[in-house]
This record gives sequence, structure tokens and C-alpha cells, in this order.
Amino acid sequence: MKSDDISPQGAAAIAPADLSAVTVVVCTTCRGETGSDAHPRAGAILAHNAKAAADGEVRVTTVECLGNCKRRLSAALLRDGCWSYVFGDLTVTSGADLVAGAKLFATSTDGLIPWRGRPDCLKRGLVARIPPLDLLKDMT
Amino acid sequence: MKSDDISPQGAAAIAPADLSAVTVVVCTTCRGETGSDAHPRAGAILAHNAKAAADGEVRVTTVECLGNCKRRLSAALLRDGCWSYVFGDLTVTSGADLVAGAKLFATSTDGLIPWRGRPDCLKRGLVARIPPLDLLKDMT
Repeated sequence: MKSDDISPQGAAAIAPADLSAVTVVVCTTCRGETGSDAHPRAGAILAHNAKAAADGEVRVTTVECLGNCKRRLSAALLRDGCWSYVFGDLTVTSGADLVAGAKLFATSTDGLIPWRGRPDCLKRGLVARIPPLDLLKDMT
Repeated sequence: MKSDDISPQGAAAIAPADLSAVTVVVCTTCRGETGSDAHPRAGAILAHNAKAAADGEVRVTTVECLGNCKRRLSAALLRDGCWSYVFGDLTVTSGADLVAGAKLFATSTDGLIPWRGRPDCLKRGLVARIPPLDLLKDMT
């Protein structure tokens, strides 16, 4: 599949949330296109870019490694009780797109980030999505 | 970074858990190396392989898409309150390795799957790891 535009089984109806329910997590260890070890790392610059774009409306946090080291700058979008997303192939100026994705996630009523209206880098850059534990059903 | 063998900031001490705390999630939509659409899909065969390897000891669930479509057969390892992991580049016979990884995850005291003793495919195949929300700190 080329996208995550697929409705998972058992998608429960949930209520839209306010922005405080969504968190942007930026990996600050990621290197940029040149692979340089110089500090601040490209990931740290992206984190500050996202923080500025959030302007206090969306929570932005950082982490030392999201494990997505094969696809450059990485960030995750999390919302409690919803799917968790990791994106790669970002740039140091992807902050506004991450914040736009977070705001879109807050409107979700099925636990997924809506495909329509999602910034292009959050379509092409999808690395993985993980369902919330309470959505999962045992294999029979 | 080539691995996730890195201690994240703020890793809290947690207690080892019993196996019921860990869940293996296999993507059943994934195609195998040939890219064939034939059913059962390679991902579904891996799910059954993992279920057989678990032998009732570890919970195995399935999902329609983990969004990791660029790196073949995929599965996630989840443990409540811990980091969530997605692995790719698996094969239809990786079930025993996934179960071994789940058992190792249950022994964790820092929320991470221990690196030492981890099956090789769960080292090389790491796609992403996502921290639990309560581990995250706001950017200052």
C-alpha cells in the first residue's frame, strides 16, 4: 500500500478533542541531508521550528531517538486513545506542517489523522502508525 | 544512528511485567518479497506463524495496516506504559523472533526492549519507536 488511507477494522467512534490532547514529538538527534554531526542537529532545529509554529497552541516535545534513522528528520504525532504516527523525510522547516497535522488530528472521530487536508509531507513521509491497545482484538 | 541502542532521557524505572502486558501486532495486509496480491497475504501467514510460536503465552493480534509499506512485512510490539516499536523487513517465519522479542520486552525495567538478547531481525528491522506520553517533557 502506498498510503495509510485505509480504514482499520474496529475503528471506534470517538469525539473530537481540543488541541491539548495532541502532542508533536520531534527527534532532536536526527541529522540533515548532509549527514553532519554538527550541533545543533537538524532535528533540534526542526523542534524549534515546530515550537515556533505551535505558538503555544499545540504541545511540542522532543525525544533523543525515534528509531527512524533511515529516513532522516523524524517526528511523531500522538493523541491519547488514537493511533500513533511516525513521519520521516521531514525538513528543518516542516514545523508548520506538523502543527497543521496536529490540529487535524484533534478533529478526528475515528482515531486516525484524516487523509484529506493532511499536509503533503505527512502523506509521503509516513513511516508507521500504531493502533491503541484498546482497539486491538485477539486472533481467533 | 544505526540502532535504537540509546537510553532516552527521563527513562523511568519500571517493574518487569508478566507476558500478558505485551502484545504482538502483525500487519496482515503486507505483501512478501514478490509483491504478490495473492491471498493469504504474506503478512497473514506471518500472523499465523507468530500465533503458533506464541503458543498461548503471548498475545498476538492483527491489524490491516501499520503504514510501514516501504519495508515489507511489519509488526509492532506494544507494552502499556512503555515505548512502542514497529519492525519491518520481516519474513513469514519471523513469528518465533517476535515472540522472543515480546518475552524480552516483558523483562524491561526502563520501558525499552533490551538490546542485548534481541533477535537480529528486531535489531536490523527497527522502523520506529514511540515513547509513552507520560515520559515526554514539554520543550522549554
